Amino acid sequence: MLDRTPRILITNDDGIHADGIKALEDAMDDVGDVYVVAPESEQSGASHSLTLSRPLRIRQIDERHWTVDGTPTDCVTMALNQILLPNERPDICVSGINHGANLGDDATYSGTVAGAMEATILGVTGIAFSLVSNRMPDFTESAKIAREVTLKALEFGVPEMTLLNVNVPKGVPRGIKVTKQGFKTARPVISEHLDPRGKLYYWIGEERVGFRAEGGTDFEAIDEGYVSVTPMRSDLTNHLALEQMRTWEEFTWS
Amino acid sequence: MLDRTPRILITNDDGIHADGIKALEDAMDDVGDVYVVAPESEQSGASHSLTLSRPLRIRQIDERHWTVDGTPTDCVTMALNQILLPNERPDICVSGINHGANLGDDATYSGTVAGAMEATILGVTGIAFSLVSNRMPDFTESAKIAREVTLKALEFGVPEMTLLNVNVPKGVPRGIKVTKQGFKTARPVISEHLDPRGKLYYWIGEERVGFRAEGGTDFEAIDEGYVSVTPMRSDLTNHLALEQMRTWEEFTWS
Repeated sequence: MLDRTPRILITNDDGIHADGIKALEDAMDDVGDVYVVAPESEQSGASHSLTLSRPLRIRQIDERHWTVDGTPTDCVTMALNQILLPNERPDICVSGINHGANLGDDATYSGTVAGAMEATILGVTGIAFSLVSNRMPDFTESAKIAREVTLKALEFGVPEMTLLNVNVPKGVPRGIKVTKQGFKTARPVISEHLDPRGKLYYWIGEERVGFRAEGGTDFEAIDEGYVSVTPMRSDLTNHLALEQMRTWEEFTWS
Repeated sequence: MLDRTPRILITNDDGIHADGIKALEDAMDDVGDVYVVAPESEQSGASHSLTLSRPLRIRQIDERHWTVDGTPTDCVTMALNQILLPNERPDICVSGINHGANLGDDATYSGTVAGAMEATILGVTGIAFSLVSNRMPDFTESAKIAREVTLKALEFGVPEMTLLNVNVPKGVPRGIKVTKQGFKTARPVISEHLDPRGKLYYWIGEERVGFRAEGGTDFEAIDEGYVSVTPMRSDLTNHLALEQMRTWEEFTWS
């Protein structure tokens, strides 16, 4: 536990104007000193993308709020390397509250998760919060949970090089489950349309989400009404496959 | 080993006009039937981002070449769910050859790796190829290696749910190392400039890349002149942290 007021960086992928980031900021109000650096516009599906091929603009709203015209990863990089002063370096970075789940493989597409991952790569514990929701989300319960989980992370710490992917079910949760990332069984569905000039365009969607029945996953926890907390890392290595593939090293070519 | 001609989907993140994708296509010419679906323009740093908030256009160039005005992930999704016919479903998806390394944490930002990951999620083995290169890359050696690695993957298969992240050093490699993802020690460096109207803009760059000295990593293999082959997966779970965090489940809140 810190012997001073914690500093909290807030970001998201739904953009600065989203209700979810306002709910998260309200929830952090009595936890510590809050700094918000969020995308100027919606960045859903941004994944861990970093803007390298064009410049970025920073817009300062007030002493504690900034926007960046890029992705959540850009926001966290800019916050930690450009915007915040050395004596403002955050103790934790919370990302969200995302409107919609980030479960299973979907975590790899998520800008919300990526914001937390970028913080962790840069040495600041990151936590992503997402609300499993329908069209009109109510962030009341998820904001309470975000506050409690953040307090807990500040008090007890999280394992080294680890970010947390937290998903909150609809309604009042039954408790917390520490979970592994599950497997989605849904498939992308591309819809085809004609524009006003008679040209085809396509839109990526998805059939109703199902998941592989397997114990201990994020999907299972949510399905049973629990908050899902998945410890994650930026290491993509399939460690189990390393030994299996060792024979590839005997391979030579001309 | 297949008893028919293999079908190979090619994508990249440098875009359809990049020299690297042409080198990869040439290398695959006698391996199987090739289908190219690549981004219309450069998408470096795109990570696993999926375009959800706007429509996409497909441009067919000829019977075997298409572009999509989106990310590598969009290209693979569109190829497998919209562009290719059921009897054209690929046996393997190769992504690259990227101009520049995708080592350590950088794999998480990479559109090249994401293209291979998307294929693997959708049930087609994915392999990402990147050339550690300076400004004027020579793809001769990396194209040979891409051909050999692809033949090997087709003949022996790769572990389930696994993609391969292949990095090729400059010059003629000493052999292959099967590696784990290493840790970069470089930090982002933001440069600040004034535009012609006197307004500030920022550009994300990086100091000279260093890496944490640790045996068996992708960085080490490249540093020693080997091709690095890292088996990867889309599961971000930190499995080692799961038990450590189990006590969080006892947590209740009001």
